[in-house]
Amino acid sequence: MKNNDFLAVELSKVEEHLLKALKTRSKMVKESLERFIKSGGKRLRPTLTIIGATFGDYKSEVVVPLATSVEIIHMATLIHDDIVDDAETRRGTRTVQSALGKNTAVYCGDFLFTRAFMLIADMAEIDMMKDLSRAIAYICDCEIDQNEQKYDQTVNVRKYLKRIDGKTAALFSLSIGVGAHKAGCDKKLTAKLSNIGRNIGIAFQIVDDILDFTGNEKTVGKPLLSDAKQGVYTLPIIYSLNSSYKEKTIKAIEMIDEDGGESLLKCVIESGGLERTKSLANKFIKKALKITESLPDGYGKEAITEIINKQLERKF
Amino acid sequence: MKNNDFLAVELSKVEEHLLKALKTRSKMVKESLERFIKSGGKRLRPTLTIIGATFGDYKSEVVVPLATSVEIIHMATLIHDDIVDDAETRRGTRTVQSALGKNTAVYCGDFLFTRAFMLIADMAEIDMMKDLSRAIAYICDCEIDQNEQKYDQTVNVRKYLKRIDGKTAALFSLSIGVGAHKAGCDKKLTAKLSNIGRNIGIAFQIVDDILDFTGNEKTVGKPLLSDAKQGVYTLPIIYSLNSSYKEKTIKAIEMIDEDGGESLLKCVIESGGLERTKSLANKFIKKALKITESLPDGYGKEAITEIINKQLERKF
Repeated sequence: MKNNDFLAVELSKVEEHLLKALKTRSKMVKESLERFIKSGGKRLRPTLTIIGATFGDYKSEVVVPLATSVEIIHMATLIHDDIVDDAETRRGTRTVQSALGKNTAVYCGDFLFTRAFMLIADMAEIDMMKDLSRAIAYICDCEIDQNEQKYDQTVNVRKYLKRIDGKTAALFSLSIGVGAHKAGCDKKLTAKLSNIGRNIGIAFQIVDDILDFTGNEKTVGKPLLSDAKQGVYTLPIIYSLNSSYKEKTIKAIEMIDEDGGESLLKCVIESGGLERTKSLANKFIKKALKITESLPDGYGKEAITEIINKQLERKF
Repeated sequence: MKNNDFLAVELSKVEEHLLKALKTRSKMVKESLERFIKSGGKRLRPTLTIIGATFGDYKSEVVVPLATSVEIIHMATLIHDDIVDDAETRRGTRTVQSALGKNTAVYCGDFLFTRAFMLIADMAEIDMMKDLSRAIAYICDCEIDQNEQKYDQTVNVRKYLKRIDGKTAALFSLSIGVGAHKAGCDKKLTAKLSNIGRNIGIAFQIVDDILDFTGNEKTVGKPLLSDAKQGVYTLPIIYSLNSSYKEKTIKAIEMIDEDGGESLLKCVIESGGLERTKSLANKFIKKALKITESLPDGYGKEAITEIINKQLERKF
């Protein structure tokens, strides 16, 4: 019978595989990437892959490399994101770009992308390769969108949801879906699990964007309001801009460098923007839970329910 | 009977495929990548793939996507290189990073990498996927080396050759090799062609490094001495540093911002560094020619000989 010990054992194998995948000639790069891996992270994507696979014929030797590859891709996108965002810290430790410079960080990200592809190629998974390539292209597309939408105060909820669907939810969906597919689940079940993954991903990103306002800097592991400071307007601001607080919000955005975002935080609270954001996150959580209810009973269903329920209360 | 018209026709199909592969949501990105494609480039890598395939059973519908994918990977590495080098122009037009900013350029490179993988995945070529992933990981590894070796005046010929083997020759070798392999050439012939590709690649990069000193800025399409200015010491400088001109070379390097590299250029000429560099390029060209002689007679052999012979006289 599978339980949370099972998950811990499988995830520890993923950690081993992550470290193994980093073999590179440069000692400095290896150390920096190792530090990045050891700084933790929630490992949500590999967790989803493992859980997805429990719905079929679970084979550890197949699932672990798959789960590792989705985490590596996630790491690669984070490294490139940190270059773009000039980020100094992540998960409480120095980012690769801050430790090794942007130059090396560009290649570190590329290196990790190809490492992930190598893992998948080793499993001779052409279909997964296609899905993964498509997902990464979509992630890039949406990151480019996000860049183009910077400082755009007319960005709306629809555009925001589209953006986070690409930059976060697509990989969540793929992570659980490939696990299920590789374990031999039928198309209907795999699609259902992918759909749950997508909704968890959207809720996850909305909660992340809430934490950028209300989180504890130490727990979150990076400076607060970093998105707003970069001109990336997330849901709390979008709602605030679309309320009677519009003028106040615009002023608060202008003042961000002066007051460190204090007025903006006040704005998104008083305008109800933050509350509306929480409601929307809740809507996606409920959606995910509803689809989960229709899954066959067992460990997988319970584990997914637990993950979904953790989202609204998470602190980092 | 295949001739140079054949090559022109096949390469024009590659151009069509290149443009098709750029479908992205962002109009700005699409335009910038299109401009990059239309600015030309020698298309040496796809040419090698096409020629490699003529040694077997040539199927245009198979070769063209392969040839396109190696050029896309090359483009992706150029876009990321230009971020690292802060380059403003390439092939006489603005670089993607200069036109769209480093942020978007990071994702443009990632986007192109995945596009290339998608093309290959569509052909269900697991082996090629592995080879390609390995080659890209190697390219990254050597670019990281190059970054770590910046401003290092003790870098020697061996390290230099290792570096250019990764950053240039590996993809040349792969380009011709996959063409041959996909056309059903046996292992021995494929290995021979890959070896020719590797030697052409090394010679090509050495000539590139010579042109960074002696080329015409307009013809080359980018500012001269750009490597030295970035602290990347290529062969002419390495030889100069390892001659009786050592002290003079060190001084000339220190003066580069003041005099635009005039003293350094004088140094590499007078020390014989430039001549020795040309000799080494010639050595690799002769090596490539020698292996080529042992190829079966026909269009492919002639085309490769022509490409090799063009290297020493090329101006860009």
